Amino acid sequence: MQKFVYMFEEGNATMRELLGGKGANLAEMTNLGLPVPGGFTVTTDACTRYYQDGEQIADEIQQEIKDSMAKLEKNSGKTFGDPKNPLLVSVRSGARASMPGMMDTVLNLGLNDEVVEGLADLFDNRRFALDSYRRFIMMFSDVVMEIDKVNFERIFDTVKEEKGIELDTDLTADDLDNIVADYKAMYKELTGNDFPADPFEQLLLSITAVFRSWNNDRAIYYRRMNNIPSEWGTAVNVQEMVYGNMDDTCGTGVAFTRDPATGANELYGEYLMNAQGEDVVAGVRTPEPISHLKDQSAELYQEFKDYGEVLEKHYGDMQDLEFTIERGKLFVLQTRSGKRTAQAALRIAVEMVEEGLVTKEKALMTIDPNQLNSLLHPQFDEEKLAAAEPIAKGLPASPGAATGSIVFTAEHASAEAEKGNSVILVRDETSAEDIEGMHAAEGILTVRGGMTSHAAVVARGMGTCCVAGCAAVNISEDEDYMVIEGVTYHEGDKISLDGSTGFVYAGEIETVKATISDHMQTIMDWVDEIRVLKVRTNADSPEDSQVAIELGAEGIGLTRTEHMFFAADRILPFRRMIVADTEEERRSALDKILPVQQADFEGIFEVMAGRPVTIRLLDPPLHEFLPTEEEEIEQLAKDLNLDLDDLKSKIRSLEEVNPMLGHRGCRLAISYPEVAEMQTAAIIGAALAQTTEEQPIIPEIMVPLIGDVKEFEFLRDVIVATADKLIADSGKELEYHVGTMIEIPRAALTSEKIAKEADFFSYGTNDLTQMSYGLSRDDAGKILDTYIQRGIYDADPTAHLDLEGVGRLMKISAEEGRKGKADIKLGICGEHGGDPGAVEYCHSLNFDYVSCSPYRVPIAKLAAAQAQIKNPR
Amino acid sequence: MQKFVYMFEEGNATMRELLGGKGANLAEMTNLGLPVPGGFTVTTDACTRYYQDGEQIADEIQQEIKDSMAKLEKNSGKTFGDPKNPLLVSVRSGARASMPGMMDTVLNLGLNDEVVEGLADLFDNRRFALDSYRRFIMMFSDVVMEIDKVNFERIFDTVKEEKGIELDTDLTADDLDNIVADYKAMYKELTGNDFPADPFEQLLLSITAVFRSWNNDRAIYYRRMNNIPSEWGTAVNVQEMVYGNMDDTCGTGVAFTRDPATGANELYGEYLMNAQGEDVVAGVRTPEPISHLKDQSAELYQEFKDYGEVLEKHYGDMQDLEFTIERGKLFVLQTRSGKRTAQAALRIAVEMVEEGLVTKEKALMTIDPNQLNSLLHPQFDEEKLAAAEPIAKGLPASPGAATGSIVFTAEHASAEAEKGNSVILVRDETSAEDIEGMHAAEGILTVRGGMTSHAAVVARGMGTCCVAGCAAVNISEDEDYMVIEGVTYHEGDKISLDGSTGFVYAGEIETVKATISDHMQTIMDWVDEIRVLKVRTNADSPEDSQVAIELGAEGIGLTRTEHMFFAADRILPFRRMIVADTEEERRSALDKILPVQQADFEGIFEVMAGRPVTIRLLDPPLHEFLPTEEEEIEQLAKDLNLDLDDLKSKIRSLEEVNPMLGHRGCRLAISYPEVAEMQTAAIIGAALAQTTEEQPIIPEIMVPLIGDVKEFEFLRDVIVATADKLIADSGKELEYHVGTMIEIPRAALTSEKIAKEADFFSYGTNDLTQMSYGLSRDDAGKILDTYIQRGIYDADPTAHLDLEGVGRLMKISAEEGRKGKADIKLGICGEHGGDPGAVEYCHSLNFDYVSCSPYRVPIAKLAAAQAQIKNPR
Repeated sequence: MQKFVYMFEEGNATMRELLGGKGANLAEMTNLGLPVPGGFTVTTDACTRYYQDGEQIADEIQQEIKDSMAKLEKNSGKTFGDPKNPLLVSVRSGARASMPGMMDTVLNLGLNDEVVEGLADLFDNRRFALDSYRRFIMMFSDVVMEIDKVNFERIFDTVKEEKGIELDTDLTADDLDNIVADYKAMYKELTGNDFPADPFEQLLLSITAVFRSWNNDRAIYYRRMNNIPSEWGTAVNVQEMVYGNMDDTCGTGVAFTRDPATGANELYGEYLMNAQGEDVVAGVRTPEPISHLKDQSAELYQEFKDYGEVLEKHYGDMQDLEFTIERGKLFVLQTRSGKRTAQAALRIAVEMVEEGLVTKEKALMTIDPNQLNSLLHPQFDEEKLAAAEPIAKGLPASPGAATGSIVFTAEHASAEAEKGNSVILVRDETSAEDIEGMHAAEGILTVRGGMTSHAAVVARGMGTCCVAGCAAVNISEDEDYMVIEGVTYHEGDKISLDGSTGFVYAGEIETVKATISDHMQTIMDWVDEIRVLKVRTNADSPEDSQVAIELGAEGIGLTRTEHMFFAADRILPFRRMIVADTEEERRSALDKILPVQQADFEGIFEVMAGRPVTIRLLDPPLHEFLPTEEEEIEQLAKDLNLDLDDLKSKIRSLEEVNPMLGHRGCRLAISYPEVAEMQTAAIIGAALAQTTEEQPIIPEIMVPLIGDVKEFEFLRDVIVATADKLIADSGKELEYHVGTMIEIPRAALTSEKIAKEADFFSYGTNDLTQMSYGLSRDDAGKILDTYIQRGIYDADPTAHLDLEGVGRLMKISAEEGRKGKADIKLGICGEHGGDPGAVEYCHSLNFDYVSCSPYRVPIAKLAAAQAQIKNPR
Repeated sequence: MQKFVYMFEEGNATMRELLGGKGANLAEMTNLGLPVPGGFTVTTDACTRYYQDGEQIADEIQQEIKDSMAKLEKNSGKTFGDPKNPLLVSVRSGARASMPGMMDTVLNLGLNDEVVEGLADLFDNRRFALDSYRRFIMMFSDVVMEIDKVNFERIFDTVKEEKGIELDTDLTADDLDNIVADYKAMYKELTGNDFPADPFEQLLLSITAVFRSWNNDRAIYYRRMNNIPSEWGTAVNVQEMVYGNMDDTCGTGVAFTRDPATGANELYGEYLMNAQGEDVVAGVRTPEPISHLKDQSAELYQEFKDYGEVLEKHYGDMQDLEFTIERGKLFVLQTRSGKRTAQAALRIAVEMVEEGLVTKEKALMTIDPNQLNSLLHPQFDEEKLAAAEPIAKGLPASPGAATGSIVFTAEHASAEAEKGNSVILVRDETSAEDIEGMHAAEGILTVRGGMTSHAAVVARGMGTCCVAGCAAVNISEDEDYMVIEGVTYHEGDKISLDGSTGFVYAGEIETVKATISDHMQTIMDWVDEIRVLKVRTNADSPEDSQVAIELGAEGIGLTRTEHMFFAADRILPFRRMIVADTEEERRSALDKILPVQQADFEGIFEVMAGRPVTIRLLDPPLHEFLPTEEEEIEQLAKDLNLDLDDLKSKIRSLEEVNPMLGHRGCRLAISYPEVAEMQTAAIIGAALAQTTEEQPIIPEIMVPLIGDVKEFEFLRDVIVATADKLIADSGKELEYHVGTMIEIPRAALTSEKIAKEADFFSYGTNDLTQMSYGLSRDDAGKILDTYIQRGIYDADPTAHLDLEGVGRLMKISAEEGRKGKADIKLGICGEHGGDPGAVEYCHSLNFDYVSCSPYRVPIAKLAAAQAQIKNPR
C-alpha cells in the first residue's frame, strides 16, 4: 500500500520529490542529530491525491495522519488536545522546489479554551499561553478560513491604543484574554460558526488549506515565473511546537550561513527575543542582527554557528536556517539552500571551492544560470527603483533597464538618437522595417506579442531592454500619444522600462552599468573546463559578433541575412528585386545587392577569425520588405519608376492569410533560385576573400523551413553549383557545408532522409514550437494569459522549451537524423538556445552546440556545464 | 551484385515494381507460352541509378545491356547490326503504374545504311526495309534528339504531294529511299552530326531518352494528376521487332477484351494491315474495327480472342492488348489492365463475378474508387464539351459540372437563385460569410486557395461543383466584372465550370444528370459485406445528413456548429456575443442563440435516426463572424446600439497576424467557457428531446484544436457539468461521449495522456497537414504550383494524405492513444477522409471509421473494402 505520511526519522534529503524540500531537510537534520523538534510529513503524493479525489483528503490518508500523530505524542511525551500536557504543532507547506512566501503556515495548532489554560499552568505563564492562542486563531482564520487578517489586526491595535502601549510584549495576560475573546467573536461573526475546538478538526482543516493554497493565485503566478509544473503538488509538515514567545529567555530568528547579498563568508541574519517566527518577518518590532546574539549568549551563538557549518558542509551549499530558542535551548526548525544575488552566488561558489568545502562541479550546481542575466545588463539604481510606482506591466522580454523619451516610430527613434537623446521606442508591435530604430533605442515597449515576438527576439539579440505585450498601453491612431489607465503620455515624455520584471514606470530612473567580476571569470573558466556542449551565438553583424566573442561565443549558429536588407543603401534594390516581373529584372537587382551583402559577410568572417559561422538564406515573406503606408508606396513607385496601380496590385498579390505558413523560407529560393545563387555567391565570395592557410574559413550555409528532403536537394544543388564554380574560378581551396534548419514538424518526422543529404541540422525551435502547438507567437499574448490563469499552461512554451511535445519531435529527429548520417552535426538556434532547460535537453540528445543571443552566451555555457555534471557524456 | 537487366524469361507479373507494368506483363506472357517476341527489361532501379549518377548510365549497366543483347541474339538467331541477318528491336518505356502516352517509344532500332539493305534482301522487300528505316530515323530524332517531328512530316508530305498520292502505302521503295536521304540530311542540319550508324550507340541513346522522358513535363503533369511518386522511375523494354508493315499479310492493332466505354463483354478495338503501331494511333489511315479481322481471317481472330480470354482469366481483369501480325503469324506485344469508364468498371466487375471468372474481392479491386466520383455528380454533355474551348484552368476542387450566370457576391448569388436563375459564384476566395450564397450557386470559382481552401471544402461538402485557385481570373475592385487574359466578363455573363478537370469555359454548356445504376448497387452491397472500416459523413444540416444517408453514410463524423451561425436569424445575437465586454452580456446573447442551435441539432438527430453523430464545438476565429465593410460595420453598430469607434476598436482587437494559429478552436471556449456551456446545453437538450428507448441517441461532443491534455480536461469538466445537470433535471437517461480532434502536432505527440481523458479521437488532417508542413492552405496555391513544376512535390498534400510525415504523426498518436486507453475510438474527419489512400491507411491503423463529405461516401466505402481485401484485419 502507498504510504502518504513519513515521520521525520523515516526520511532523508534525497526524498525531496515526495517530502518536499522542507520535509526532506527536516528529516535529514533529524538523522544528522541536530536539535529538530519532532514531526512528520504528509507527502506531495497526498496533495496530488487530494486533487484527484475532488479536493478531499481520503479516509486512508486521514488514518495515517492520526497514526503519525500518535507516534509524535509518544516521542514527545505530550498529548494532542490534552490540557494537562498539551502537544501543539505547526503546520507548514513544503513544495519540492522552494517557493518562499507562496504557501501558508499555521502555528500553535492544538489550542482551545481548555488546552490554553493547561498550557498556562504547565509553563506557569498565562501570558505566553494566551499570546500563542491569539496568534493561532488569527493564522487559522486567515489561512484556513480565508478571513482577511485586517479584521484581527484592527482588534489588536485598538487594544494596544487604548492601553497606550507600543510593543506587543507589553500586553498583559488579561489584555490577551480580551483579545482572544474578541477574536473568537469576530470569527463567529464572519463565518457563522464557533471557532473549532477539536484539535484533529483543526489539523485536517489546516492540511486541507495548505493543499488548497497550492492553487492560489500567488502560487500559480510564482510557478509561472519559475517554470514549476503544477502537477508537483506540495507536502505538509506537522511539527511539534517549540516556543520563542514564552519570555526573554526565548526567541526566534532566521540566518544565512553567508551574506546572500555579497556572498561574504559570515553569518547573516536577524532574531527577536520573546517572539514567534512571524514577528521577525512582520516588521512590528525591529529584529536584532544575528551578530548581537554573540553578546547575549556566546555559547548559543557558537552552537548555532557550528550547526550552520555542519549543514553547509553536509549540503555543500550556503544555507538559510530558521531557529527558535526555548528557555535557553536552541532548536533548528528549517534549513534550505539560501536564495542569493547573482554576485553572491558567484562569490560563494568560488570561495567554497577555495575553502575545500566542495568540488568545482558541486559549486557550479549552486548557481542558477538565469541569474547571470542581471550581471550582463544595466539595472536600475535600487533605491531609486524602490521609490518609483509602476504604471503598467508587460512581459519581461529582454532584460536590463532603460530610461528615455517616448517615440512612436522607428524613424523618430533614429532621428532622436542621432541628436544624442535616449529614447524608448513604443510600438503596437515591431517588424523587420523597424530594425534601425530598435537599434537606436535604449528600450522597446510593445503592446502586442509574446516572449518570442519580433520585438522580443530582436531586442534580446541586441541586448536591448524590452517589455513586450503590454496590453494596458493604447497608442493613438496617429501615433502621437499613448494612454495608460486614463493617463496620456506624449512623444518626448520620459518613461523607464525594466526588462527583467516587465514593469513600466513614468519618468526617468537612474541606471547602473553592469560589470564583469573576477568571480564570474573564474566560474566561466571552470565552466569551459567541464562542459562538452559548444555554445555559439545568433548574430547578424560584425558588432553583434564582437560582443558575443567577448562573452565567450565559440562561433555563430545563426546569421539572419534579411536584417541586412533594411539598411538604406540596399532596401531599394531589394524592393526592386521583389516587385520584378521577370527573372532578368530580378537578376539585375540582385547584381546590385551582391557586393554589399558580400561585404557584410566579410565583416562577420573577419571578426569571427576562423570560428564556425552558419548563415541562413533569406527567410521572411517578401511582403515584410515592402512599405504599407500610402505615402511610402507612392514614393517607392516613383523611386522604381513603376505605375502606382501596378505596384499596389503587386503588393496586394503578396499579401497572405497566414504569413507564417506562407511563401517564405526555402520556398522563396525555390520560386526564385537566383536569390539563393546571389546569397551563395556573397557567402562564398566573402569566405574566399577572408580565408587563409593559417585560419581557413569553412562557411556553413543553412537552408530555412525545409519540410521535405526534395526541397533541400533542389536548393543544395543550386548552392553547390554556384559555390563550386566560384571556388574553381578563384583557384583557392575552400571547404563549405550545406545544412538545414529543422523547424517544421514534417522535417523532424522525415529527418532520416534529410540527413542523408544535409551536412548539419539546426533546430529552429521558435517555429517548431509555434507549429507544434499551432500557436502563432504574434497572436499568443492574450491566449497565454488566459491559459496560465486557468492553470492550463505552467509556462510560456515560446520562452521555455516544451520537452514533452516539441522536445519529443527533436528527439525523433535527432535519432532518425543519425540513422541517415551517423556523424551529422546537430545544433539549436531558436530562442530556446539560451534557455537552461533547453540547453540541458540538447546536451542529453548529444547535440554539438547550442546557439543563443550574445548576452545569453554565459548563461548557456553554465547550463551546458551543469548538464555535463548531471549527465556526463 | 544488383541485377539491372532481366530477360523476359526471367521475370513475372509480380515484379511490376522492378520491371514496370509492361515488362512484368511481357515476362508473364512469355512464361504463359503466348507468342511474344523475345527481349529484356532494363529495370526501374537502373532509372533511379541513372538519376543518382547525374543522368549517366553506369558502365556496369551498359555491360549488362550488352550481355542481354547477346542472349537475345542467340535466342532469335539474328545478330544486332549484322546486315546479313539483322536483329532489330523496339525500345519502350514501362513504368510501374500505367502512364499511357506519357513516355516515348523507338521502333526498328538497329537500322543503318548497310543493315537496311540486308533487311531488304532478307525479306526480299526493299520498300518495307526503307519504310522501317524512315520510321526509325523520325522516331529516334523525335524521342532521343528532341527534334520536332514536323520537320520530317513536312518532307514526307511534300513527297506524297509531288507524287499525288494519298496513302503512305502507295509510296514506292524509291520514294522512301529519297525520304530517308532527306531525313538524314535534315538530321545533320538540325544536330550538326551524322545520324548515328552504330546500333549500340542508338540503343544506349534511346534508353537514356526513355529515362530522361520520366521527367518531361507531360510525365510530371500526369504523375501529379495521378499521385504517382517521382522516385519510382521507369523501366525500359528492349524487344525483338516483328513487322506489321511488310505487306498486306502483315498488320498491327490494339484491342480491349471488353468494351471500355460500356463494359459489354465483347472484343473492342481496331487494327490496320501493312502498318506499324504508330499508324493506328496517328489517324492517317482509318483503322478497321477489330470485328472485321474475323472476315479477313477467322482463324487469326479466334486465336487473338483466345489469347484475350486466357489473359483475362489469368489476370482476372479486362485486358488492353497490342498485337502484330507478321506474314500471317500473330504476336502479342503487350497486355495490361484496360482503362475504362466508371460505368464500364462497375459492369465488368459485376459480370466477371457472375461469369465465375473472379471472386467479388478480386472484382472490387479492379475499380478505382475515385472514378465513382463522375457517377455521383452531373457532367457536361460530352459532345458539347468537346466543342468548347477552355478560357482558364484552376484546381479541380469539387467535381461535377455547372453552368450559369456570373455573380461576384454571395448576396447576388442568393438573390439570383431566388429568382430561379442558375449562377456561378466568382470570388477571390470565400469565407464563412459566403455560405448562403455558395449554397445558392450551381458552381463556385475562386481566384486563390488550394484543394482544401474554404471554397473547396465547403463545396465538396455540399456536392457543389468548384474550381479553386484559378489565378488567371482578375476580379475588378468594385466586384462588377472580371478579366481573363484580356477578355472582360460582366456580372450576368454565362460561364461553365468543370469541377472534375478545373477547366473554365465561356458560355453555357449542357449538363447531364447522374444516375445510380444497378451495377453500382451490386458493387456497394459487396463493399458493405467486406469492409470493416465504418464510413461516416461530414454534415452540418439535416439536408446534408439526408443526402449522406442516401449515399450510405453510417453516421456523422463531423458537424461544424459554426456554419449555423451565419443564418439571418442568429448572426446578430452571435455578433452581440462576440463584441460583449462582460460575461453577463455574453451569456445574455448566448441565451438567445441556445434555442435555435438546439433546434438545428434536433433536426440532425431526427434525420440520423439513432446513428452516431459527432458535433464539434465552435472552431473558427471570432473575427470571421464580423463584417469587414465600413457600411456593414456601421449597420452593426446601429443594430447593437454600440458606439461605432468602440465597435471598430473591438473588431481591430480581434485581428490576428496568423488566424490559423490564433484564438480559435478550444481556445475560444477556454476564454469563454459559457460558449461551450451553451453549445453543450443545445446538444444535450436536442438529444434529450429526440432520444427514445427504441432509438437511443448517444451524442458525441468533440473539442477542436487540443494541443495539451489540460485544455481537454478543462473543457471536458465544463461540458460534463453542464450535461449532467441537464440530464439529471430531465429525469431521462442519456449516454454521451466527449472526445477531441487530433489536429495539432503536439496533440499527436502527447496522445497517451489525452487518451486517458478522452472518449474518442478524430483526426483533423486538414489542420494537421497544414501545421505539419507549415503551409497554410489559403496561401499554398502558387507555392504548390512551383513545387509540382520543379518535381519537389508529387501531389498536393492537402488533397492526398502524406503518409510519410502526417501519416507518421497519426500512427504515433494512434499507438500512444491506445496505450492511454486500449479501446479508444479512432476516426478521421479531415478532407482526406474521402481520399482512398487515406482510407487504406486508416484501415491499416485499425481506425473505427472515416468521415468524408456526403458525395464521397461511396468512394470511401469502396476504398475501405479494398483495404480490407489487401490487408484483412
